[in-house]
Amino acid sequence: MSAATHREKLLSLFDDNQDGVIFLKGADVMYRYGTDYEFPFRQESNFWYLAGVNEPEYQMVLDLKTGEFHLFHPKRDAQFAVWHGRVKTEDQIRDLYSPDHLHELNDLLKVLKALKPSLIYCLNEEQAEFIEDVDHGFTVETETLQDAITYCRCIKTDEELELMREAARINNIAHLEVMKAIKPGMYEYEAKAIFDYHQLKNGLLQPAYNGIHAGGTNSAILHYVENNHQIHDGELYLIDAGYEKEGYASDVTRTYPVNGTFTGDQAAIYQVVLDALNKSIERTRPGVKMEDLHMGACRIILQGLKDAGVVKGDLDEMMEKNIFALFFPHGLGHFLGLDTHDVGGYPKGVERIDRPGIRFLRVRRELMPGMVITIEPGIYFIPALLKPALENSEQSKFLNAERIQKLFGFGGVRIEDNLVITEDGNENLTDVPKEIKEIEAMMKS
Amino acid sequence: MSAATHREKLLSLFDDNQDGVIFLKGADVMYRYGTDYEFPFRQESNFWYLAGVNEPEYQMVLDLKTGEFHLFHPKRDAQFAVWHGRVKTEDQIRDLYSPDHLHELNDLLKVLKALKPSLIYCLNEEQAEFIEDVDHGFTVETETLQDAITYCRCIKTDEELELMREAARINNIAHLEVMKAIKPGMYEYEAKAIFDYHQLKNGLLQPAYNGIHAGGTNSAILHYVENNHQIHDGELYLIDAGYEKEGYASDVTRTYPVNGTFTGDQAAIYQVVLDALNKSIERTRPGVKMEDLHMGACRIILQGLKDAGVVKGDLDEMMEKNIFALFFPHGLGHFLGLDTHDVGGYPKGVERIDRPGIRFLRVRRELMPGMVITIEPGIYFIPALLKPALENSEQSKFLNAERIQKLFGFGGVRIEDNLVITEDGNENLTDVPKEIKEIEAMMKS
Repeated sequence: MSAATHREKLLSLFDDNQDGVIFLKGADVMYRYGTDYEFPFRQESNFWYLAGVNEPEYQMVLDLKTGEFHLFHPKRDAQFAVWHGRVKTEDQIRDLYSPDHLHELNDLLKVLKALKPSLIYCLNEEQAEFIEDVDHGFTVETETLQDAITYCRCIKTDEELELMREAARINNIAHLEVMKAIKPGMYEYEAKAIFDYHQLKNGLLQPAYNGIHAGGTNSAILHYVENNHQIHDGELYLIDAGYEKEGYASDVTRTYPVNGTFTGDQAAIYQVVLDALNKSIERTRPGVKMEDLHMGACRIILQGLKDAGVVKGDLDEMMEKNIFALFFPHGLGHFLGLDTHDVGGYPKGVERIDRPGIRFLRVRRELMPGMVITIEPGIYFIPALLKPALENSEQSKFLNAERIQKLFGFGGVRIEDNLVITEDGNENLTDVPKEIKEIEAMMKS
Repeated sequence: MSAATHREKLLSLFDDNQDGVIFLKGADVMYRYGTDYEFPFRQESNFWYLAGVNEPEYQMVLDLKTGEFHLFHPKRDAQFAVWHGRVKTEDQIRDLYSPDHLHELNDLLKVLKALKPSLIYCLNEEQAEFIEDVDHGFTVETETLQDAITYCRCIKTDEELELMREAARINNIAHLEVMKAIKPGMYEYEAKAIFDYHQLKNGLLQPAYNGIHAGGTNSAILHYVENNHQIHDGELYLIDAGYEKEGYASDVTRTYPVNGTFTGDQAAIYQVVLDALNKSIERTRPGVKMEDLHMGACRIILQGLKDAGVVKGDLDEMMEKNIFALFFPHGLGHFLGLDTHDVGGYPKGVERIDRPGIRFLRVRRELMPGMVITIEPGIYFIPALLKPALENSEQSKFLNAERIQKLFGFGGVRIEDNLVITEDGNENLTDVPKEIKEIEAMMKS
C-alpha cells in the first residue's frame, strides 16, 4: 500500500496556495472494559490510508501549502522494549514511513505554531477537540476532511486492488476448505475453526468482520455471530466471513447443504438467489446505479419465489407492495475496502430510499472503475417478518401461506461475491464454487 | 457458573438491614474506531459474575435489604430479530437468568424510586455518572462495590474451578498440538493458526488475552504479539496463550527448541527456569506470600545463571543488587479468573514493592485455598536491559560480559503453569510436557 500515493490524491482535492493543514491522529490500543485485555492492534483506516503506519499512538500533519508530510512518533524507552518490542530508531522510522519531517509527539504544538495554519482540517469532532486541547488558538474544521478522504478511498489504486485480490485469494482457499469439511453433527465453531485456520496459516491475522457461521434456522439471522450450535443433516449452513490483507477486506458468503446434497426446496430457493447474483454481476459495470441493481435483484427474487410457489400474483403489483423485502430484507451490496462496509456509499446530499429492504442498501450511487463492491442477494424465511405479513391482508394475498409455514425451518440462503468495477464491466475476485452441481461434486469428493 | 451463588457471596459482605442497593451496568457491543466493525461480544467480567447474562445492554440492581435480584433487559423489536437473532420472551429471560424481578431497561428509574435506596453502590465513576444522569436525586458511592466483588472473585467456587479446569484441559490439547507441529521455516502465525484451531474446534471462542507466538529473539519481548516472523533452525519458540471457558481464562507458556532438540545453552537456561518453576510450585500452598515465592524464584534463577557462567560473584550480594531482574524482569505470576490478570492482587493498603522485577508482580498477598494463580518464571537476554548493565560498574562486575554478548541472539525462556490453591498445597491445571526429555521425545515423534 502506498500511503504517499494516497496523500497526493488527497492533496489534489484541496485548493493550491492555501495555508491550512490536515491533521490526523492514529489509533491507540483498545482495551476491554477497564481491564488490561488488549485487542490486537489495528490502525484506524483513514490514518492507515494516509500515513501507512500500523503502530499505535502516531499522529500526522499534511501541510497543504507545501504538500509536506509531518509524522509524529511516540517516544519509547527501554521499558517499552522489554515489554512490547524493539524500539525503532528515528532512522528506522524514516526508512519505513518516509515522512518529509519526523517529530516526537510532544512537538506537535511547536510544529503547528511554526506552520501557522489558518485552518486545521480534522477528521471528526473528537480529533478537533484534541487539537483544541493542544492550543485553543487554532481554527479547526470537521466538514471537509472526512468527505475528501472518503472520495479518495472509494476508487482503489492498482496497488490497493492487488491487496484486495490477495485477501480474496486466501478467502477463496478458506471457504473451499470449509465447504469440503462441512458434515452433519459438526458445530458451527468447528467450521469457524477450519476457516480461521486457513486465514491465519496464510498470514492474515485480522478478521475483516465478525464472521457468520450459521447452521439451520440460524442462517436466517442476518448477523448471526453466536457460532455455537450443532448443524444437522438436511439443514443449510451459511458462512459469511473474510479476513484483511494489510487492512483490505474480503467478504464472501456461501450457503451449502450440510449433508452435501440440496433437497428440492433448498435447490429451488438456492437457484433463485444464484440467478439474482449472476444476473446482478452481469449488470455490474460503470454507470450503473447500485439502487437499480438492488431493485433488479428484488424482481428476480420475486419471480423466482413465484415460480417456486412461495408467492403468487402479479409481479408488478408484488414489486409495488415490496413483497420481496419479506424474503430479502437487506441491501444487495456495499463498498469494500479498508472497512468491510467501506466508506462513500452515500455522497453528500444523497439520502437513503425509504422503502423496505432498500433502506438498508449501503451504497446509492453510480458505479465507477476502481470501486470494489459486494453483491449478496439472499432469500430467508424469517418468522419475525413472515408471521406478521401472513396476518396482514395487504401482504397475505400474495403469500402462499401453507408453503411458507412449512418453510419456517428452512433458514436462509445468501451468496456473495466481491467485484472490482473495471472500464468495461467487472472483475470477480471471488472464486469459490457456487453452482449447485459444483458444490455437490466438491462436497462429495 | 452460578451467578446466584456469587450474588449471595457478595450480599454476605454488606450489613444486614441497610436500605442501599447495588447497581451494575452490563457491557454494550464494542466497535472499532467509529466504524460498524463489531468485536465479538464478551460481557464485562463483574456483570457476568453477578448477573450471568452474556448479552449486551443489560443492567441489574441488587436490593441489599431483601437480597432480591432485579434484572433489566433491553426491549428488542422484529427488526432486531431479523438482524441479530431470536428475540427472547420475558419468560425465556426468566428461565435463563432467574431474576427475582424482571424489568425493561427504561423502567430503571421507576424501580429505583420504588426501592428508595439511601445509597446506590456503583462499580466505578462511569456507572455512577450513568445513575446520576438517570436522576440526580440518588446518592451514589464508588468506594465499596469494586472491592467487595474483587474480594469474592479472588476465591473461586467449585463451579468456577470446574470451568477453569475445562479451559485448562482444552489449552493443554492446543499447546500439545503446537509443540508437535513446530519446525524450522514455519511462520509464527502458522503456529498460532494451529493453536487457535484447537481452541475453536473445542468450543472456546474467546482468547483469554492477545496470545504470544514468538520465535528467536522475539521470545525475549515479554508481550510480543506481532506473530508474523519466520522461525528458524536452532532458535527457541515461545508460546504464551490460552482461551476462556465461559469467561474463565487459561494462561500457559511453553518454550521449545524449533528443531526439536535443545542446544547446550538452551538446555542449560531452560533447566534453570524449569527448576524455578518446579520449586515455586512445590512451595505454593495456603499461607505463602506471592512476593516470597517471587523472591525465591529470583534466587534460583540467579544461582542457575551463576552455574551456567552467565553471572558471577556472591549470590547474596547479587540478590541485593537485583541482578536477577536483568534476566527476569517481570513478576512470577498473577491471579487468574474471569480476567487473565485477575482482580485482587493488591488488597487495599498494600503497595507495590519498589524494586526491579518485583515491582511488576501483580499479586502481593498470602495465598488462600480457592485462589488460582499462574507461576511463570523466565530468563531472557534482552539487549535493552543488558547493554546498559554492562556499562554500569555496579552491575557489570557480576556479569560475564563475553558470555552474555554471545547470548544476545538467544531470546528467552518462560514456562508457566496454572495452579489452584488447595487446603494443603495446590492442584496444577496445566498438563503440557515441560521436562527437556519429554519435550524432545514429543517433538521427535
